[in-house]
Amino acid sequence: MGPAANAQEAAAQFKQAMRAFAGAVTIITSSHASHRYGMTATAVCSVSADPPTLLVCINRATSTHGAIARSGVYCVNVLRYEDRELSAIFSGVQKGEGRFRAGEWLRLATGAPVLASALVSFDCRVAARHDHGTHSVFFGAVEALRIGAKGKPLLYANGQYAKLAALHHGEPLPEGLDYWGY
Amino acid sequence: MGPAANAQEAAAQFKQAMRAFAGAVTIITSSHASHRYGMTATAVCSVSADPPTLLVCINRATSTHGAIARSGVYCVNVLRYEDRELSAIFSGVQKGEGRFRAGEWLRLATGAPVLASALVSFDCRVAARHDHGTHSVFFGAVEALRIGAKGKPLLYANGQYAKLAALHHGEPLPEGLDYWGY
Repeated sequence: MGPAANAQEAAAQFKQAMRAFAGAVTIITSSHASHRYGMTATAVCSVSADPPTLLVCINRATSTHGAIARSGVYCVNVLRYEDRELSAIFSGVQKGEGRFRAGEWLRLATGAPVLASALVSFDCRVAARHDHGTHSVFFGAVEALRIGAKGKPLLYANGQYAKLAALHHGEPLPEGLDYWGY
Repeated sequence: MGPAANAQEAAAQFKQAMRAFAGAVTIITSSHASHRYGMTATAVCSVSADPPTLLVCINRATSTHGAIARSGVYCVNVLRYEDRELSAIFSGVQKGEGRFRAGEWLRLATGAPVLASALVSFDCRVAARHDHGTHSVFFGAVEALRIGAKGKPLLYANGQYAKLAALHHGEPLPEGLDYWGY
């Protein structure tokens, strides 16, 4: 792509380029003052295994951001392909508590909503926060883990949901330092 | 999973759980004092579109970390499924400059190596850094973008490489605020 003429064009080029960056779809939840909050997100990554830590990157304009900032807890629920309807619900079809009418929701250590049918859920307490532009990155110490349902992950790529063709191609990889960066 | 008895067990449980979290495979590169550095990584996510910003999460024990810290630049190259051999090379099969013998490498704005056959490359200058435990998170302002080869992304899930079954399932999604968090 050529150089962007202005900020608006740069943002549009970036969004276009990010379409090629496939991501696992999660629902990030929180709970504050007896209300549940949640949103669909792909901006999640592992930070370290010792201590177990994830980060999530959340727009400060969202209600889920406010709940995490106030409660200091969140849960990352990694969705199965079968739960793409939940992904749609938590990305705008429903608002607030209404989003939790679908799906079965539990609680583990922190009180943040845990999706029973998630592939895996990471129940986290905020250990650090770094604000950058419009977003906050919350570093979450994993207080509890739950392996939920079996299945293939729900992915998002090129503006569409997608799933894995196969989980087994070739040899298992060396799980070295470089690979996951643990 | 039950509560971990100790830190070692907690780390093992976390790694096991992270296997379910599918990720797009990237090669993160840097250049410092005329040497090139690079490593395979999945711990990358978008931060904001305005200004275009990515973050990468990198173990401080790696040589790529040292290069990024010193040069203040890095490039995130999103791999095609066809380039899984490069993923293996950059996750340990080769070391240092030897890793760059395979593949065609270019430079854009920052001087960090850009893989010609990547789906897309984000050439970044470090705008902020946040250290957390064993890792550093580098927030990179995207100075140049390059759409490379066409193809499907290389994914990593359950300890194996995988690819997408299909890019088109159902309706395009609303690209709302909540979804990508832009």
